[in-house]
Amino acid sequence: MLRLYHQPLCPFSRKIRLVLREKNLAAELVEIEPWRREASFLELNAAAEVPVLVDDDAVVVDSAAICDHLHETHPEPDLLGETQAQRDETRRLVAWFDVKFRREVTDLLWGEKLLRRLKRNGTPSSEALRAGAANIRGHLAYIGYLYEDRRWLAGDVMTLADLTAAAHISVLDYLGDVPWETSSAARDWYAKVKSRPAFRPLLMDRITSIKPPVHYDDLDF
Amino acid sequence: MLRLYHQPLCPFSRKIRLVLREKNLAAELVEIEPWRREASFLELNAAAEVPVLVDDDAVVVDSAAICDHLHETHPEPDLLGETQAQRDETRRLVAWFDVKFRREVTDLLWGEKLLRRLKRNGTPSSEALRAGAANIRGHLAYIGYLYEDRRWLAGDVMTLADLTAAAHISVLDYLGDVPWETSSAARDWYAKVKSRPAFRPLLMDRITSIKPPVHYDDLDF
Repeated sequence: MLRLYHQPLCPFSRKIRLVLREKNLAAELVEIEPWRREASFLELNAAAEVPVLVDDDAVVVDSAAICDHLHETHPEPDLLGETQAQRDETRRLVAWFDVKFRREVTDLLWGEKLLRRLKRNGTPSSEALRAGAANIRGHLAYIGYLYEDRRWLAGDVMTLADLTAAAHISVLDYLGDVPWETSSAARDWYAKVKSRPAFRPLLMDRITSIKPPVHYDDLDF
Repeated sequence: MLRLYHQPLCPFSRKIRLVLREKNLAAELVEIEPWRREASFLELNAAAEVPVLVDDDAVVVDSAAICDHLHETHPEPDLLGETQAQRDETRRLVAWFDVKFRREVTDLLWGEKLLRRLKRNGTPSSEALRAGAANIRGHLAYIGYLYEDRRWLAGDVMTLADLTAAAHISVLDYLGDVPWETSSAARDWYAKVKSRPAFRPLLMDRITSIKPPVHYDDLDF
């Protein structure tokens, strides 16, 4: 029995929800507000962060560790790719989005706009918002550049790179922060990932304080 | 033939140097200043970051991807642990140091003091330095807490968790930023990692603009 502690609009939680669905694994979803630092949750994760996966007796902390855990316990379908070169490329892009994109875009837009609001932690920094809005354009162009030569971000098969990138992009899209008009190739790629059945539950999540733009759950946006 | 593009005082580069040595793999080391964005290096890594590993025809980018690549191409010795629970714990701690510790300590101290100087990018933020100096105490206490019950950070065997933590700590120790007096257990753990033969080359690195404190390369500090 799998149980995932998550936040609906957390990109790292979303990535695991996508991985679970792509691997055809059912999991009980428990929504948590980790910043409340409730004792029962701190016992699961001293870092007080989601996602956390409970797999019978195992408590698996951190989205990268959860991906590796699921890869080892449920190897099929493989979301990394068959050849060593393909797996290297998948992982390069996973790090690109989870580290670089996160630092240059997600933290600046989602972190300032949404996370601050949820944590009731002051007002967004306009400097951060401006930097995030500028940076996302370069990243969309890079997605477009990759997609023009490939069927998916890391090559000819759908991999964890697509799920990672789409998990980040999806929360920014919810906030209306993705300038789709700047890259039609990036838009085409996202429309393709968004159309996967695994994506559907994510597109149905809503939080009460912020409504997504009308195109958010439109598969032919 | 392996070639590693690295920076001597970059924690992520150091981690890979430790992994290579622990796996008894020889690699040619190429020192690079990635912030110069030289065209030949950007061709290897569009993100303009070290470490980058070249393994014959393969170009492997990002320290986590390099660890996975080396784990798959040279499985022995395994640096993750034998059981699933051990591997999960190793990876939890790898993420703890590479993500949380990096954000709360490394970026604030090493990033402000050293990286800014190397990049000739302004003066350190005193707010960041204060926050980093406060945060490292909690992390040292956590290392001590783990080590009091275990032979190594993630359990009874030396793993990638120890190498990751020690790679970060080692650059902060070079800068004289580790308040060892606050946790004797953390100091004992670090003395143990530091004594491994794999660590020796790291302790011999010097940069011209900053000298390390006298205890830096002392194994019985």
